[in-house]
Amino acid sequence: MKIEQQHLSHSDLMAMEQRYRASLVNSLSGFKSVALIGTHSLSSKQTNLAIFNSLVHIGANPPYIGFISRPDQVERHTLQNILDTGYYTINHINESIYKQAHQTSARYTKDQSEFDATGLTPVYKENFEAPYVNESFIQLGVEFKEMVPLSINNTSLVIGRIVHVYFPSDCLKADGFIDPEQAQSITCSGLDSYHLTQRLARLSYAKPGTVATKIDENQNR
Amino acid sequence: MKIEQQHLSHSDLMAMEQRYRASLVNSLSGFKSVALIGTHSLSSKQTNLAIFNSLVHIGANPPYIGFISRPDQVERHTLQNILDTGYYTINHINESIYKQAHQTSARYTKDQSEFDATGLTPVYKENFEAPYVNESFIQLGVEFKEMVPLSINNTSLVIGRIVHVYFPSDCLKADGFIDPEQAQSITCSGLDSYHLTQRLARLSYAKPGTVATKIDENQNR
Repeated sequence: MKIEQQHLSHSDLMAMEQRYRASLVNSLSGFKSVALIGTHSLSSKQTNLAIFNSLVHIGANPPYIGFISRPDQVERHTLQNILDTGYYTINHINESIYKQAHQTSARYTKDQSEFDATGLTPVYKENFEAPYVNESFIQLGVEFKEMVPLSINNTSLVIGRIVHVYFPSDCLKADGFIDPEQAQSITCSGLDSYHLTQRLARLSYAKPGTVATKIDENQNR
Repeated sequence: MKIEQQHLSHSDLMAMEQRYRASLVNSLSGFKSVALIGTHSLSSKQTNLAIFNSLVHIGANPPYIGFISRPDQVERHTLQNILDTGYYTINHINESIYKQAHQTSARYTKDQSEFDATGLTPVYKENFEAPYVNESFIQLGVEFKEMVPLSINNTSLVIGRIVHVYFPSDCLKADGFIDPEQAQSITCSGLDSYHLTQRLARLSYAKPGTVATKIDENQNR
């Protein structure tokens, strides 16, 4: 089947109306890690919740996770709380809560909690200094480590160390894989499209001269 | 339904066997952007292809995309070629090529092209100085801009400017969204799990006091 391809150059992209370009360029990285980041303010413990679609694995040893923070109002509450308190939570999104999760991107004022506004439930666990989302099935407690300024466009890469992990017991496989599909986590694309997933396969560790085979999850347990 | 949750602390994570921890921590960011990065060497134009699951949107204006490069052998070929030539391609992965895409993670030697080893086809377009994957439906031509060292764990965030975009014509929506699901792009989780997607909905721009509604793709065209 021949697919008819369209081509856009850099100057085509730069000539676009701003929101059109934002929608288009946000599509180009494909499916993205999407999660809710929970924080509270230092003084009043006012809770805050914001959706981020720019999570990125930084390293496993020690366990570091990052996200890109943009210089805009919604995310500044999250970033300010992280810088002030040193802690935040990262909560996977499932089908039951994706509309509320999306709604946290509305520009609420600083004295209004997105938990209250969307009906999601903050929960504190193990004396950790940031609220988790009770309705989320995979929850991370994260300690702020470093904010790396990206001078190229005034965004920042915020890096934290994973200090607590909560997940459904039956989603942990014999080799350490915690299956986000089995945990009902969803993915997103562009600025506003949310997707369930359907596994093709897990593939064995790739070596030259051999063909990767499907990992049998039942053998793997 | 009550889901039985398991908890792991930071010290639990640090006590794990290294590959088990890598598998587990790589699961925690959920579904990830996964793509093939195509390059060639400066001197001999030897092509190189490597799978990356750490793509991240950096900005739309101008259009910047990033990925995390780890200090290991496979990725060094890609990084060295990018630094030498200044150009690379990012190619979405679809169901027809995900096994070959995974196979590019095998540790081939520097004089062996992953294109040849996996049977994927390099293609040059518009005089761009890096090979695209012909079997990929969404292809980006990227100009290297900046390597941001992450001293926390000796990885780097590699940032490039998107200078060419190729995509199936019918996947472009009226608001600029290029639908990766319609373009058959897949997502991944952990180190080795590949997934198709199934859209829940696109949701309208969120505003305080209103409820986000589903965007009707037909109206949207």
